[in-house]
Amino acid sequence: MIRDVVQTTLDLVSRQSVTPEDRGCQVYMDAILGPLGFNNESMVFDDTTNMWSRKGTDKPVFCFAGHTDVVPTGPAERWKYPPFEPTIADGFIYGRGTADMKGSLAAMLCATERFVKDYPNHKGSIAYLITSDEEGPFINGTTRVIDTLEARNEKIDYCIVGEPSSTVNTGDVIKNGRRGSLTGDLIVKGIQGHVAYPHLVKNPIHAVAPVLAELASTTWDQGNAFFPPTSFQVSNIHAGTGAGNVVPGAVEVCFNFRFSTEVTDQQLIDKVIAVLAKHDTEYDIAWTFNGQPFITERGTLVDAVVESIKEVTGIDTELSTAGGTSDGRFIAPTGAQVIELGPENATIHKVDERVNIENIKALENIYYATLVRVLA
Amino acid sequence: MIRDVVQTTLDLVSRQSVTPEDRGCQVYMDAILGPLGFNNESMVFDDTTNMWSRKGTDKPVFCFAGHTDVVPTGPAERWKYPPFEPTIADGFIYGRGTADMKGSLAAMLCATERFVKDYPNHKGSIAYLITSDEEGPFINGTTRVIDTLEARNEKIDYCIVGEPSSTVNTGDVIKNGRRGSLTGDLIVKGIQGHVAYPHLVKNPIHAVAPVLAELASTTWDQGNAFFPPTSFQVSNIHAGTGAGNVVPGAVEVCFNFRFSTEVTDQQLIDKVIAVLAKHDTEYDIAWTFNGQPFITERGTLVDAVVESIKEVTGIDTELSTAGGTSDGRFIAPTGAQVIELGPENATIHKVDERVNIENIKALENIYYATLVRVLA
Repeated sequence: MIRDVVQTTLDLVSRQSVTPEDRGCQVYMDAILGPLGFNNESMVFDDTTNMWSRKGTDKPVFCFAGHTDVVPTGPAERWKYPPFEPTIADGFIYGRGTADMKGSLAAMLCATERFVKDYPNHKGSIAYLITSDEEGPFINGTTRVIDTLEARNEKIDYCIVGEPSSTVNTGDVIKNGRRGSLTGDLIVKGIQGHVAYPHLVKNPIHAVAPVLAELASTTWDQGNAFFPPTSFQVSNIHAGTGAGNVVPGAVEVCFNFRFSTEVTDQQLIDKVIAVLAKHDTEYDIAWTFNGQPFITERGTLVDAVVESIKEVTGIDTELSTAGGTSDGRFIAPTGAQVIELGPENATIHKVDERVNIENIKALENIYYATLVRVLA
Repeated sequence: MIRDVVQTTLDLVSRQSVTPEDRGCQVYMDAILGPLGFNNESMVFDDTTNMWSRKGTDKPVFCFAGHTDVVPTGPAERWKYPPFEPTIADGFIYGRGTADMKGSLAAMLCATERFVKDYPNHKGSIAYLITSDEEGPFINGTTRVIDTLEARNEKIDYCIVGEPSSTVNTGDVIKNGRRGSLTGDLIVKGIQGHVAYPHLVKNPIHAVAPVLAELASTTWDQGNAFFPPTSFQVSNIHAGTGAGNVVPGAVEVCFNFRFSTEVTDQQLIDKVIAVLAKHDTEYDIAWTFNGQPFITERGTLVDAVVESIKEVTGIDTELSTAGGTSDGRFIAPTGAQVIELGPENATIHKVDERVNIENIKALENIYYATLVRVLA
């Protein structure tokens, strides 16, 4: 009997695994993989449940990566169907996590089972790197599993992250890299006082305005063949006592860079510091580095995925590095080839999240065809 | 028996008249003024108690103006002495309202009583215009009393507002005018979205930054002989969802102009609108006009006050138009000569507000000497 990707998705979505909860999803996955010859190491770090499950000891190591946690639903009464009672309607499965990314996990499991049965003597190893904190602070998830593997020199060669990369049809877009991300929390200081005594105050909002104007109008790079230009965005700014007649003593600003491989995080930091100095501001700044940019160029993995998408769907896929960060940023620095391939992302993190059933069926077939190309 | 300005101050400060409360202060004042021949019209508008009390029907009308309300104390345990149990220590009277401005009210009452007894046949009229909402929204106070007087064509010729104008010694500074005040509440609109998709967002913080930079660096005028240059101050700015990866949909900014007679409020508004248009911002703006600038040049009132200060204290007073607004802005437009003269303002609105006893004694004598010069 062939395992059904729809039923497997339903089984996973009905487990209410709001980040960082796993709620038995990984036990469910192990119950499928164990009989296929996978050896699961469960790695629990604080509130996070992780799974490193591998079949075989040979090289190359082909890894499916992903997460069992989902984002909160918001008010459940705003959903057409109860978010954790997955419901089939109009050709879709509705429910929190159907697209991000339990549909992908189901497709991985079904593709793996079929492949192992069809090719019992395949070369290399197949592995699963699954976490329950991708939607959270990503401190105790993939990054710590990778640390563990690196410490014992266990390497992944090829990795497909099941993040929903597609726009309409599965495979119309895959991510073969991601921009870097750097966040700055800036406090510009002034001297508080009454607006009626301008000679006694130093207005921090006036001090920061030309700084932000200059940073917002700066061209950081032109991007390159793989990356769009580096972008700067201020996300938050706050100053003021609430009173209209008081100049505040400080202004708080939070901004973020998404950057290409044409600049480094240190170059961005140096430029921001130079602009702050040029405008003679008094400030404190704290930097949060969220990941280097990475790129997986054409090669074994990208070629196999591109060909498999073409074979299964007829689509000439688009390689993209746009969009948000994913756990791929923790895996790529080990030297692995990493791509992201999953279903359509139109409804992720929203009310009435859903996945097109044809898309997860296609996804299973693409995963299967890729396994065949790389390991058969 | 001569009424004592210290005891009168204590009597007023012990009445807990946090704005817009009067707590019997005006009844107390009427009990002193009534026997001197004053006729009190109590004008209650909504939550505000006002007093228009006049002795005589002749011209000119010499008016003492002020307020019985005080600002809140904040946590009383942070005060050296209970804020509404006025306490004499180190040559000061401590308590909320001692300097702003119950010490001035006491000095007015004592000076008036002495003057009326010394000059029973003085010319003109003496009046009191007292409110209980000067520290509040100033909607139901002096402005409505003035409206009432204007409606019956009752005019004030000379007006001393008892606001604490002095720096160290009573009379070292008097205010013979005030700048205008204009507040703008600006909302600049953008398009919210994820920082990772810069082509899908329109960042309102980036839009407003060059606007604020330009407004903050603009020279509005050079001021003139009576006024310092017009100043622009941003008091509040807020934008952001709290999340570091979301570009907000709008930014809210509150700013204030203190302006001289070299520009009009309409010119300031036009210039702000022009800068917003130049930077191609989409915005809503609401204006609150807090008062035209006014000036009382040398003449009967200023000369009498300047000479009286010199006579009582030996000080050559400084005429100033700096600092915050006062109810003088409602009285000056009727054609009255208006100055502000009161004790030192170092501790007003603060914890441990206090007034130097010598300063309120000097203030009583200056008020008395001014009455003599104008009405004897």
